[in-house]
Amino acid sequence: MAELSEFSLIKQYFDKLTVERDDVELGIGDDCALLQCPADHVLAVSIDTLVESIHFFADVSPESLGHKSLAVGLSDLAAMGAKPAWFTLALTLPEVNNSWLQGFSQGLAKLAEQHHIQLVGGDTTRGPLTISIQVHGFVKAEQALRRSGASLGDLIYVTGTLGDAGAALQQRLTQWGDDSLTAEDKAYFLQRLEQPSPRNSIGQTLLGLASSAIDISDGLVADLGHILKKSHVGARLDLSKLPLSTAMEKVARQDAEKLALKSGDDYELCFTVPARHESEIEQLLQGQCTRIGMITDDNGLFYINDSDDLIDLSEIGTGYDHFK
Amino acid sequence: MAELSEFSLIKQYFDKLTVERDDVELGIGDDCALLQCPADHVLAVSIDTLVESIHFFADVSPESLGHKSLAVGLSDLAAMGAKPAWFTLALTLPEVNNSWLQGFSQGLAKLAEQHHIQLVGGDTTRGPLTISIQVHGFVKAEQALRRSGASLGDLIYVTGTLGDAGAALQQRLTQWGDDSLTAEDKAYFLQRLEQPSPRNSIGQTLLGLASSAIDISDGLVADLGHILKKSHVGARLDLSKLPLSTAMEKVARQDAEKLALKSGDDYELCFTVPARHESEIEQLLQGQCTRIGMITDDNGLFYINDSDDLIDLSEIGTGYDHFK
Repeated sequence: MAELSEFSLIKQYFDKLTVERDDVELGIGDDCALLQCPADHVLAVSIDTLVESIHFFADVSPESLGHKSLAVGLSDLAAMGAKPAWFTLALTLPEVNNSWLQGFSQGLAKLAEQHHIQLVGGDTTRGPLTISIQVHGFVKAEQALRRSGASLGDLIYVTGTLGDAGAALQQRLTQWGDDSLTAEDKAYFLQRLEQPSPRNSIGQTLLGLASSAIDISDGLVADLGHILKKSHVGARLDLSKLPLSTAMEKVARQDAEKLALKSGDDYELCFTVPARHESEIEQLLQGQCTRIGMITDDNGLFYINDSDDLIDLSEIGTGYDHFK
Repeated sequence: MAELSEFSLIKQYFDKLTVERDDVELGIGDDCALLQCPADHVLAVSIDTLVESIHFFADVSPESLGHKSLAVGLSDLAAMGAKPAWFTLALTLPEVNNSWLQGFSQGLAKLAEQHHIQLVGGDTTRGPLTISIQVHGFVKAEQALRRSGASLGDLIYVTGTLGDAGAALQQRLTQWGDDSLTAEDKAYFLQRLEQPSPRNSIGQTLLGLASSAIDISDGLVADLGHILKKSHVGARLDLSKLPLSTAMEKVARQDAEKLALKSGDDYELCFTVPARHESEIEQLLQGQCTRIGMITDDNGLFYINDSDDLIDLSEIGTGYDHFK
């Protein structure tokens, strides 16, 4: 049936992705790409799709969208401790818009260069704007940061600050925070939503030290919940330790905690570390991560409130009650 | 932002994909799948997207769509001579329709079993129906069937019969052929369009024998054209040799030739073979392929008509003039 010419499109705009790796035997332009996998490592792969009006606003800049499309995949590699190598792009576009393609491919190219990850194949089709990217990386099988490795007594850490992307979303949807936030604060939140920084360097630092890891795409409670379920353990968090950005510290504490716990799209890492590696981790990642709790044999994820009650975090609800 | 629960969806319907390979260190359910690549082979990857109303009719059966979504990727592996290993699925759905998911996953599962290819990851999102599948396979780098390997004097072959999928499309769009085709003929054409058979066994047989290969997704003239361009050669075809199905032989010769030359979606292979391998290929693939021409030093793709004129096939036009 009718189709855009994938070859001409990919050639024109994606040739500017200048990363060229020695392990690419054959790149774009044949029926398949041919890729050399290093011995003694396993291939780590992940595919993610972004759909207009579901995962991003229709008015997002194409540069930001190019960045984010690749960032979410890189973040999956980070959460596994895998070193980025290659990606493929399945791009469905309603029309050929040159300036959009220019911006999108530039956003993609810039992040790809930072992580030395090469575009090795793709498909461009006509249809509602949808972007699927598969990332490929390498990790030693025995070191890979699986969700299933957390044990009783392990310490729980997160990178960066939490809730910023969710704050941008609330801002956009409900003008939340208009009374306390400056234009700079809002721009900061928006940048966190639209151009997340995948934590690949940290993910690789965790190899041999962390017992499990996940990236925070759906919110801390949901994503740490995946680790707890896969590892058959529970956890207790100290909410006073939740790392918040300077902008987030300007809003009501209750709002900030809810965003930090429940909102997604931050693409920070949450990971667990056996107590014997505590000092090494804190030295290696000084200022880049925060200890927020501990793995327990509780049946679920809890915190202790000011009245010394154990509160089940999963029961707080997945929506932003406050914002409704 | 709002999202289907990819985990529950993938788990429920795609667990029935029962292929389990020893080289899958970790499958669905973590941030990445972990996969073991065999030494002395390269990894061959290809990603393809099917969009509703562009690549398939909205009323196609979900079983057929599941089949075809994987078949187009398998066909790319076939064209490279690579042995199928794993695939990932990025599925965007307007709604959670259980019977649709049931049918789609069954169509996928059946073809996956035939080719011993394992689903190792995916993403399910809400949006207009769009299916991206990435396939992964293995081939020895020096044997891979690239588009660039055709040489002067090589023989040109195609597998199966040509134009059948295009005939189904014409039937559907214009009622073309209603006067000469039986209900069985039409059902045959439709089955060729909706459930193509990727030629992976043939592709692997070609290793060490064929000098180049491509799968016919856009039509023989367009796809053989890619080989000629990449190989810096020309070709002459003998149109009387174009392999036609029994159903196709019932329609006007002019229509049949046009469909065989110009229509896509057949997912047969077109490949070139040095003359010294002619007898071996014809013995190994008896009845499965047809010699249709030869690589030349012409500047393009030609045939010789009844008046002994050299006719440039690229000038026949890409549309179905006859049908307009």
